[in-house]
Amino acid sequence: MATKGVILSGMRPTGRLHLGHQSVLNNWVRLQEEYDCFFMVADWHALTTGWEESKEIHSNTIEMVADWLATGLNPEKCAIFRQSAILEHAELHLLFSMTTPLSWLERVPTYKDQIQKLGEMGKDINTYGFLGYPLLMAADILIYKATTVPVGEDQIPHVELTRELARRFNHLFKPVFPEPQAIVNKEVAVLPGVDGAKMSKSYHNYIFIGADVEEIKKNVNLMVTDPARIRKTDPGNPDVCVVHKFHRIYNPDVLKGIETECRAGQIGCVACKKQLAGVLEQNLAPIRERREDILAKKGYIEEILQAGEEKARESARKTMEQVREAILGQ
Amino acid sequence: MATKGVILSGMRPTGRLHLGHQSVLNNWVRLQEEYDCFFMVADWHALTTGWEESKEIHSNTIEMVADWLATGLNPEKCAIFRQSAILEHAELHLLFSMTTPLSWLERVPTYKDQIQKLGEMGKDINTYGFLGYPLLMAADILIYKATTVPVGEDQIPHVELTRELARRFNHLFKPVFPEPQAIVNKEVAVLPGVDGAKMSKSYHNYIFIGADVEEIKKNVNLMVTDPARIRKTDPGNPDVCVVHKFHRIYNPDVLKGIETECRAGQIGCVACKKQLAGVLEQNLAPIRERREDILAKKGYIEEILQAGEEKARESARKTMEQVREAILGQ
Ligand code: SF4
Ligand code: SF4
Repeated sequence: MATKGVILSGMRPTGRLHLGHQSVLNNWVRLQEEYDCFFMVADWHALTTGWEESKEIHSNTIEMVADWLATGLNPEKCAIFRQSAILEHAELHLLFSMTTPLSWLERVPTYKDQIQKLGEMGKDINTYGFLGYPLLMAADILIYKATTVPVGEDQIPHVELTRELARRFNHLFKPVFPEPQAIVNKEVAVLPGVDGAKMSKSYHNYIFIGADVEEIKKNVNLMVTDPARIRKTDPGNPDVCVVHKFHRIYNPDVLKGIETECRAGQIGCVACKKQLAGVLEQNLAPIRERREDILAKKGYIEEILQAGEEKARESARKTMEQVREAILGQ
Repeated sequence: MATKGVILSGMRPTGRLHLGHQSVLNNWVRLQEEYDCFFMVADWHALTTGWEESKEIHSNTIEMVADWLATGLNPEKCAIFRQSAILEHAELHLLFSMTTPLSWLERVPTYKDQIQKLGEMGKDINTYGFLGYPLLMAADILIYKATTVPVGEDQIPHVELTRELARRFNHLFKPVFPEPQAIVNKEVAVLPGVDGAKMSKSYHNYIFIGADVEEIKKNVNLMVTDPARIRKTDPGNPDVCVVHKFHRIYNPDVLKGIETECRAGQIGCVACKKQLAGVLEQNLAPIRERREDILAKKGYIEEILQAGEEKARESARKTMEQVREAILGQ
């Protein structure tokens, strides 16, 4: 490690990842070459909205980290770790809580939105921990003195709050924290689910990153095409077709040709899907194989995590020594 | 250790203790003979209402623990430790936060009261951490599986909330925590300050536990007596006299005699105060000497704290293993 800056990013362990996650992961794989990267399994965060499913966190972690590694995260180049293994995150969160006005948290835009949204789904998350979620995220980021935080659009206000907290701490006590910059992963929302809605586990419209040939075929067959097209000689409109959106990402070289043939009624949807399934299989096969190898090595992921936790802990402890010194003035 | 149950109690490190604290401390000294006692320097709690004075926490801790030891806490019999040294408290606090409805904390009776009271004193404590204070206190108690919590009257709702949290956790995940019982220290409020108001650091009307002869004399002389008494032959009313309240506690054997003589105008206030000063000196001299010895041994208190933290950490870690197992189901 050592380079352009420090990156902290994380995902909640919700199990196997799907193609909708691939652009974020590919971004991480690029970033690990240029930054000191800390990639976190956000298992405490998983509890803020889903403590009812807490029993699945362990196996979900293993599945998710398998996807990370199979996609190309290199534990020699980055630290892969569980948030809950670094108690110092909880300590920093607690310390921040002492100086953070309630109003700062209440006005975070996602706060009331999410309570309402999840409330409509019958889920009551109006807990103390849910209100404090952005504080924990700030602690996650600042404890590694991250300079750069790759996030989705909706997380920008959280990074803004993190910067405010860093400024406030530096001002009240002593300059300890850098003010991290958000970099927004713009591709994230591009890939739809097979039904055209957002690809998401809750919609069951996803393709797993490590999907096998049969799963790929089955899901590509389920993809919604131009509904106005009855016969294969009818001209099609690729702009309203899910298959086309996948070609755009996984088959960019022949994209123009497919578009032309579709509009001219020269290619049938069956053939077009077959081609996509082939390309996806080509893309996913090596990931799937690495994934299977990784999971076959008993205890391997646990080892990777423990090694990553050593690195993370060392860095977090250094920061916390400075934090305690800044507060206590010793 | 090992006996009638487990006790957790603590004080915020605000510096040297005064006679108003003595009954609580004497109670602790008794309790250490019968219970497994954890006595905590509540330094994180001190930040919830006083992070502006954070630089004084270290020296305040040393002064306070010197008073504890001088009064008779025996580090062989109990664990004396700093809250901030046991990161597991912050972890348990965070985990509780995930399942605790905001409304449970908002309805704690002391919450709005204190915000208003401190607001009137020009202190804004409407922070996330202040709202969560009872959760941290619950974590402090439950992490040692305390069965018994000696508290002041005003803390009873906090112990009630702690019991609710224990029940909720046991129900949601697995039975890990006992439901602790509050025992209320009734004597606490009895001793007034020299001016007749509550003895308190903010009123500058206190006598330190380790006060020397001159401080004792000076403060006894400042004590407010029956204001209706002009000459020493006037009959006095001990019920409105601060000196009398001290005699009641420190000089019970001759109390009746003093009362009779006062009402009969047979003893002057000067003589009465002199007698009290003598009795206080007798009471405080051995404490003062032990206190001086303790502070003279360089690094001694730090050693005591570190040893106590070993004990506390061992116990806290055992509980947290069960907590994590209960949540993750491994
Ligand atoms: S030919 Fe291909 S791009 Fe055109 S509608 Fe059919 S599946 Fe979609
Ligand atoms: S004689 Fe003693 S008890 Fe009576 S008023 Fe004076 S100081 Fe108080």
